[in-house]
Amino acid sequence: MTSPVDEPRRRATVVGTGLIGASIGMALRARGWHVTGRDRDPERAAQALALGALDQVGTDADTEVTFVATPVGAVAAEAAVALEGPGVVTDVGSTKASIVRSVDHPRFVGGHPMAGSEQEGVAGADPSLFSGAVWALTPVTTTHPAGHSLVRSVVTSLGAEVVELAPDHHDRLVAMVSHVPHLTAAALMRLASGRADEHGVLLRLAAGGFRDMTRVAAGHPGIWPDICAENAPAIVELLGSLEQALAEVRALVAAGDRAGLLAALEQARAARMNLPARVAEPGRMAELRVPVPDRLGVLAEITTLATELGVNIDDLEIAHSSEGEAGVAILLVDAGVVERLAVALGARGYHPSRRLV
Amino acid sequence: MTSPVDEPRRRATVVGTGLIGASIGMALRARGWHVTGRDRDPERAAQALALGALDQVGTDADTEVTFVATPVGAVAAEAAVALEGPGVVTDVGSTKASIVRSVDHPRFVGGHPMAGSEQEGVAGADPSLFSGAVWALTPVTTTHPAGHSLVRSVVTSLGAEVVELAPDHHDRLVAMVSHVPHLTAAALMRLASGRADEHGVLLRLAAGGFRDMTRVAAGHPGIWPDICAENAPAIVELLGSLEQALAEVRALVAAGDRAGLLAALEQARAARMNLPARVAEPGRMAELRVPVPDRLGVLAEITTLATELGVNIDDLEIAHSSEGEAGVAILLVDAGVVERLAVALGARGYHPSRRLV
Repeated sequence: MTSPVDEPRRRATVVGTGLIGASIGMALRARGWHVTGRDRDPERAAQALALGALDQVGTDADTEVTFVATPVGAVAAEAAVALEGPGVVTDVGSTKASIVRSVDHPRFVGGHPMAGSEQEGVAGADPSLFSGAVWALTPVTTTHPAGHSLVRSVVTSLGAEVVELAPDHHDRLVAMVSHVPHLTAAALMRLASGRADEHGVLLRLAAGGFRDMTRVAAGHPGIWPDICAENAPAIVELLGSLEQALAEVRALVAAGDRAGLLAALEQARAARMNLPARVAEPGRMAELRVPVPDRLGVLAEITTLATELGVNIDDLEIAHSSEGEAGVAILLVDAGVVERLAVALGARGYHPSRRLV
Repeated sequence: MTSPVDEPRRRATVVGTGLIGASIGMALRARGWHVTGRDRDPERAAQALALGALDQVGTDADTEVTFVATPVGAVAAEAAVALEGPGVVTDVGSTKASIVRSVDHPRFVGGHPMAGSEQEGVAGADPSLFSGAVWALTPVTTTHPAGHSLVRSVVTSLGAEVVELAPDHHDRLVAMVSHVPHLTAAALMRLASGRADEHGVLLRLAAGGFRDMTRVAAGHPGIWPDICAENAPAIVELLGSLEQALAEVRALVAAGDRAGLLAALEQARAARMNLPARVAEPGRMAELRVPVPDRLGVLAEITTLATELGVNIDDLEIAHSSEGEAGVAILLVDAGVVERLAVALGARGYHPSRRLV
């Protein structure tokens, strides 16, 4: 094994050194990277430097990867600036479709680490923030596979579990698991606080369940107007569906329909029990080798297909043949699901081979 | 101090030996009580005995207090049976107005410990379940003060913080902090699981906020048809208000009203930050001595008034004078709020005196 001193440090850039950006900087530096950072607010960049999230403030003409970690509304513009420089560019915005559409560059891969949204500011930065967290990537057919797999491997090295999704699919899903729950928590909290005459005693009665349900409403609201603006169609549709679902429950209660109510709650319980724990299942792994043409979109197609099938890709590597255009995508997946993925790939014209490892 | 062996053990009865009933039994026995218990299901009573929640299964002709810890729908009937025997009777039902109305007995005090709703069964019983929990009591004007203060002191001795409320006020409040949040969590969870095509990946994306918000939906649904039946009016009204609140948020998102959205979220955040921690504030205490006529309803009036004023009563004692009908209610409250309570009592014709302790 080569000693670290013999290898030049890999170089990354972070644009926007708030909670997420500074945490990425810290996590990369802990893994030996050289990290350059900048922020619209020079004081915040200086603070990130002082906290050890950066090696230097400024720009880096040799950067291998740039993480744009600004608020959602500023991502597209900052990504365009970063793409004037070298390397692959990714972002951490909570919405993806409009960002990916407006950046539209083969060296850009949309990203969204699902961690840390309840805090803010460089002071809360934590190098282990992404350990075990889901990190969505949204490659599209025009995304360069090498850039995609580089971002994937860097993000995975930070301890995150990568999930590849089409950008608009990502946005519908986060509306469901994040945006609408957040707005609902806020609505519940406002409803409770609006009963002003009962406020004091109500707050004393508020036990665990209510506290759990409204906790996210304590988060800083500053990021939400941007998120709601970017993801308005999905949020509006889902809020409407939730209102409808609540109206149905209300009708069951009003009608004294015990059986209907029980059935609805049993269904919710079964779904909740089904939420997987964040712990990876230990078990035998399988390697799937997929010969692929060296064209844009192949890697995005394979990884988003895996996501749709519920197959987690633990490792991904592209092996290029020494001759010609072809290569092999090597995927490491759980042995229990390799068959499912192989069949689906076969149906799309790929010829994967598999072996247990 | 008298040695414990010189004093007969105080005697309590628990009817219904599920999670709450068995926890009460364990907590009382840990404090030296003799506890008799019974359950509709003899096997469950035997299990409670085996787990150390009871001294004996059956009835106790000398019981000082009976806790009816059956499902809500069975409380009124079991309380009536218990009231054929001696002592004061209280219950642990999640709704109070209809129970208090149908039991209607001076030796009955409605109660509701706000703890443990997410588990069930005697196997989950825990003698420290009530430590730091809020335990609502709903005395009414016909409740005998001695019975009320006995239940209050026993419940306080288990580590609970007592909050006195009128029964229908209690029901409106728990609809807000418990029933409607629970139904909302279930609706969110069903909505998520209803998107079947996206289910697998959606569940993988579900991060902390969504997990927190839907956690209560994993609870056993068996108790909810009863609760919804007993508290239908308050639940129906609040669900309607929540639907309205969500429709307002939806309109803000659809209109791209960033300022309106930010204001709504700021308001929710301020309210959530305002939720008091469950830790009692250390500080100087004050004793309030309130001469009271020995008539029904006096204690209920004073304690529910304190609740409405947001004044926590840390200790309460009734000192009867040796002559005549009058007595003195002695309340221990925080020094910072004693003035507020004294003034309100004065406005209702009482003549309280106060001193710091």
